[in-house]
Amino acid sequence: MSHISNSTGRFIVFEGGEGAGKSTQVQALVKRLRDFGLEVVQTREPGGSPGAEVLRNLLVQGDAGRWSPMSETLMMYAARSDHLETVIRPALERGAWVVCDRFADSSRAYQGAGGGVAPEFIEQIDAAVVGDTQPDLVLVLDMPVEAGLARASARGDKENRFESKGLAFHERLRQGFLNRAAKVPERYRVFNADQPIEPLFNDIWRVMARAFPELRVT
Amino acid sequence: MSHISNSTGRFIVFEGGEGAGKSTQVQALVKRLRDFGLEVVQTREPGGSPGAEVLRNLLVQGDAGRWSPMSETLMMYAARSDHLETVIRPALERGAWVVCDRFADSSRAYQGAGGGVAPEFIEQIDAAVVGDTQPDLVLVLDMPVEAGLARASARGDKENRFESKGLAFHERLRQGFLNRAAKVPERYRVFNADQPIEPLFNDIWRVMARAFPELRVT
Repeated sequence: MSHISNSTGRFIVFEGGEGAGKSTQVQALVKRLRDFGLEVVQTREPGGSPGAEVLRNLLVQGDAGRWSPMSETLMMYAARSDHLETVIRPALERGAWVVCDRFADSSRAYQGAGGGVAPEFIEQIDAAVVGDTQPDLVLVLDMPVEAGLARASARGDKENRFESKGLAFHERLRQGFLNRAAKVPERYRVFNADQPIEPLFNDIWRVMARAFPELRVT
Repeated sequence: MSHISNSTGRFIVFEGGEGAGKSTQVQALVKRLRDFGLEVVQTREPGGSPGAEVLRNLLVQGDAGRWSPMSETLMMYAARSDHLETVIRPALERGAWVVCDRFADSSRAYQGAGGGVAPEFIEQIDAAVVGDTQPDLVLVLDMPVEAGLARASARGDKENRFESKGLAFHERLRQGFLNRAAKVPERYRVFNADQPIEPLFNDIWRVMARAFPELRVT
């Protein structure tokens, strides 16, 4: 199942808390990669495939307490399994780049660090579902919790059931992302997302070009 | 989380393949237990709680190939987690009897033995989700596959997405249930379900009265 050995497909994931600007940077990166003539699949989680989007709707509708963190973890990985099988792995196998807004680290952060589901349990499921289709690079957009929540609130995000969870919850999320990045440094890069769109994208592109030689053509 | 130590609640599960007569026997057992003046919660899987019924609808609608066995396993346990937290454990904690039409062994049989999901993976999820809320007694209604499928087909079961799976699949299910019963004999009883409703119920009641002293009052 290792896509790296049989193709040049690359799997890039954006992670981070609320209001960090992931969607904007995903779009900018996808555009830049397409300018290189690459085939790019832009996708997101939860969701990203027809079955997974149905599960996403179940998860984001209603209040944050509708499902327990345990049920959420299982639904997230059910959606992720569908997304991997029907979208991500086929794209990587044909050599495309996949740029995904959130992936497994959001489960580790929201349901694990934030929701209290045992990290060992999440890793057991991750090993069975994601296996060796791990991202080639995870770009963590990091910023102070208050500033991120203020941004998310200003844009009136209707699907954000976690905004009401309080600062302590969001601090746990932030630490969850940072701890994960520190644990797997070869595949993670942390960015200061508390800056305007363009300088942040320049930082991201510099890292991408360093990580992937095929992007160094100028 | 052990309900047995803090209450007299009992958790009874019916399992078996298609057309074995589980629903009929569930109803007969619930009625008999209520005649004893017991509080009985009759429930079913997949489903049994509002959140779990939503997941059930996702699972049973459309064809059998809509979700992979892995996604199905995760959705089944997400639903089971909700069912346990909101219905089964509260009932057992207040001393009620819970009679459930299908439970975790159907995941072991349909997604594991039938669908090829690794048994070790299912046991990891089961340990985290079900934990020690294991059924006090599992009543396996066993019958030849052809006869069961003929019965299920005759009643025109619209939700049965597995009928088209072929005999070999249903033979694996049947062996899955029988193997599980053989592995945990103290909590499992296998019944010949290829007989009329009343003699089968008499067999079941005889076993129940032997297993639970409180049912021996006559």
